[in-house]
Amino acid sequence: MDSLEPKSQQQLSETGRIEAFSDGMFAIAMTLLVLGIKVPAESAASHLASALIGQWPAYLAFITSFASIGIMWINHHRLFTLIGRADDALLALNTLLLLGITVVPFPTALVAQYLEGPGTRTAVLVYSGTFVLIAIFFNLLWRYASRGGRLLDEGADPVTVSGISRQYAIGPGIYLVAVILAYFSPVASLVLNLLVAVYFALPHHILPLPPAS
Amino acid sequence: MDSLEPKSQQQLSETGRIEAFSDGMFAIAMTLLVLGIKVPAESAASHLASALIGQWPAYLAFITSFASIGIMWINHHRLFTLIGRADDALLALNTLLLLGITVVPFPTALVAQYLEGPGTRTAVLVYSGTFVLIAIFFNLLWRYASRGGRLLDEGADPVTVSGISRQYAIGPGIYLVAVILAYFSPVASLVLNLLVAVYFALPHHILPLPPAS
Amino acid sequence: MDSLEPKSQQQLSETGRIEAFSDGMFAIAMTLLVLGIKVPAESAASHLASALIGQWPAYLAFITSFASIGIMWINHHRLFTLIGRADDALLALNTLLLLGITVVPFPTALVAQYLEGPGTRTAVLVYSGTFVLIAIFFNLLWRYASRGGRLLDEGADPVTVSGISRQYAIGPGIYLVAVILAYFSPVASLVLNLLVAVYFALPHHILPLPPAS
Amino acid sequence: MDSLEPKSQQQLSETGRIEAFSDGMFAIAMTLLVLGIKVPAESAASHLASALIGQWPAYLAFITSFASIGIMWINHHRLFTLIGRADDALLALNTLLLLGITVVPFPTALVAQYLEGPGTRTAVLVYSGTFVLIAIFFNLLWRYASRGGRLLDEGADPVTVSGISRQYAIGPGIYLVAVILAYFSPVASLVLNLLVAVYFALPHHILPLPPAS
Repeated sequence: MDSLEPKSQQQLSETGRIEAFSDGMFAIAMTLLVLGIKVPAESAASHLASALIGQWPAYLAFITSFASIGIMWINHHRLFTLIGRADDALLALNTLLLLGITVVPFPTALVAQYLEGPGTRTAVLVYSGTFVLIAIFFNLLWRYASRGGRLLDEGADPVTVSGISRQYAIGPGIYLVAVILAYFSPVASLVLNLLVAVYFALPHHILPLPPAS
Repeated sequence: MDSLEPKSQQQLSETGRIEAFSDGMFAIAMTLLVLGIKVPAESAASHLASALIGQWPAYLAFITSFASIGIMWINHHRLFTLIGRADDALLALNTLLLLGITVVPFPTALVAQYLEGPGTRTAVLVYSGTFVLIAIFFNLLWRYASRGGRLLDEGADPVTVSGISRQYAIGPGIYLVAVILAYFSPVASLVLNLLVAVYFALPHHILPLPPAS
Repeated sequence: MDSLEPKSQQQLSETGRIEAFSDGMFAIAMTLLVLGIKVPAESAASHLASALIGQWPAYLAFITSFASIGIMWINHHRLFTLIGRADDALLALNTLLLLGITVVPFPTALVAQYLEGPGTRTAVLVYSGTFVLIAIFFNLLWRYASRGGRLLDEGADPVTVSGISRQYAIGPGIYLVAVILAYFSPVASLVLNLLVAVYFALPHHILPLPPAS
Repeated sequence: MDSLEPKSQQQLSETGRIEAFSDGMFAIAMTLLVLGIKVPAESAASHLASALIGQWPAYLAFITSFASIGIMWINHHRLFTLIGRADDALLALNTLLLLGITVVPFPTALVAQYLEGPGTRTAVLVYSGTFVLIAIFFNLLWRYASRGGRLLDEGADPVTVSGISRQYAIGPGIYLVAVILAYFSPVASLVLNLLVAVYFALPHHILPLPPAS
């Protein structure tokens, strides 16, 4: 009953289930983001076009969050092609990561409403800070699974594994730069978040698929 | 680690995963549409029936968007019966397409609220414009996957492939007609969108299933 | 390219995909129902308990809709254990059924807000009317698939098939009784809807699993 | 057609389907929780940071509910590794459990809004009471499935089974303590709920995976 012992075929399907469950939560969080874009109030009817254009922070926040969660989904999926076994600690760390992902629609709606005006710096700090946390949670999950090959698939390529570890170590730092930037220019901070996502969405920068085993 | 190289069995399951993830987002976007239909305010209690009938634009927009995303789901699924391999660019283009799909509840709610009154033209322009963009994203995805058979399944029938390419080339144009129509008659523009969806929902007009391989 | 011709193994997975997609929409619609239960306004803080009790129509509507969609999910799933092939018309009819299912959160929220007061009769008429429509859509789907065994699995038991046809023919009628009852007693109409769902949730009244083939 | 008779291979996939459907509803309910965290009203722009900090009950309620449903998902999944057959009563009991799970976003939003001020005791009573009900529903499901091994997999380890029965018997009691605690200190009651979830999230306290068969 010690779930840290070597696992057989049943545990492989356990990671399959964790992946499917996580995929669902990534997909729902991405889709809920649209609820942060509000229909302008009736009073705006006579100048609806300018009211819609004036909502540009909502669109920028939507696209940034959508791209960021999308990239994180791809990375999560790639990690689990290397992780071959699950234990209770991995489950707990994955749940922590999912908590971070599902919370994103809140700072996104916050930025949508406050990117212009007095609260802007606070809103973007919260936004970028959320991604710092998520990047940390990603590192916790990966370090736990990969340290000494604890939960890795036997065929996991060591070069790929150490490459991911190096790449992930940078993640919280990049988002921390966005947090600091928020003090000086909230919009620039948001755009940096978007650029990070777009950069990783470009071919060859995504966490590579491990060589087919 | 170059993910553009020929892929083995593992990549086939990669497309399966992309499909499952995309299916989830199509399903959630379709289900969220209902949140755009608002319960009339308490003050309408004494004449609730007429208040509900007065909301007909919300129902028309709901049905149009539901049918449109439904048809797009079927088409997306059919494309992936022909696409046999995935690479990072396909992933990025598919994420772009999903961004378009998940945004649909916003213009739908916009039309629901503004189909009658001063903002109507703007609302329907945004609505039809969203579908022009989605149609373009569909073309980008398909062109990338099919050009020179890059990512197609080896058994993909060339006649089917070129038929889809021709059919897809028309898509943005049809929705562009709806955009132009919105200048003259917003309601007619919306109804055109609905007719396009219903037309493709009728048997024999859906992107055909490839012959069983 | 005629998708009405006899299908091979590929189409069997086509019904699997339709089922998975439909399951997702049933699950999401059931989960969104909770958004129809509103947190009482701040002004109710000093008498929150009575404000919550006063919201009983919202709970009744939630439970009724949840149970109804739940039963419909089980029935949908059981139908697809008998349906062995899909064609474009089945896809269109299934999409029509899903449109009915995903709309349920709206009449549910309507009843939650208007079960007490002037609009009650209208609200319950719309609610029960929605289920009449869904019952009709179920019949359309099943009649199309089962007529002459068109899309049925070869092993589908004729007795089971004709039993379902008889059972389904009654469905719209039962919900029509609830519509008529709404004129005299809206609450009784709602309770009838709930009783129908609970009745079918009891063991032995659910559409039976076909004998294992 | 008596679905209580011994089942063959088809029923095994029946439990697979129930699990997938349940997983979806757990995931959606967890993701919808974020909608209970409201963006502060525009008037708070000049002091957004303090307005956000003042919303701490919303974050506490979010994390508590997220962790609780997450743990319940893991437990639900573990139960179904032991349950090998489904019948209609199991389906009905599982639907009852899912009703409890999907309702959680409502008491969560209630606590988020009322943890401070006059309604706090009522709000937390409703919150903890919801978890008492869910714990009871879990027991009903498990007792029904495990009594005399009725629906258990043949390879289910008797020690594991009786261990779960003992562990589950305690569940409603723990949450009942939280209900009683709500009379004296609503915040302490909420924190107890969180501690229960965190305790079970720690390795070795989760319902153990059955030994691989």
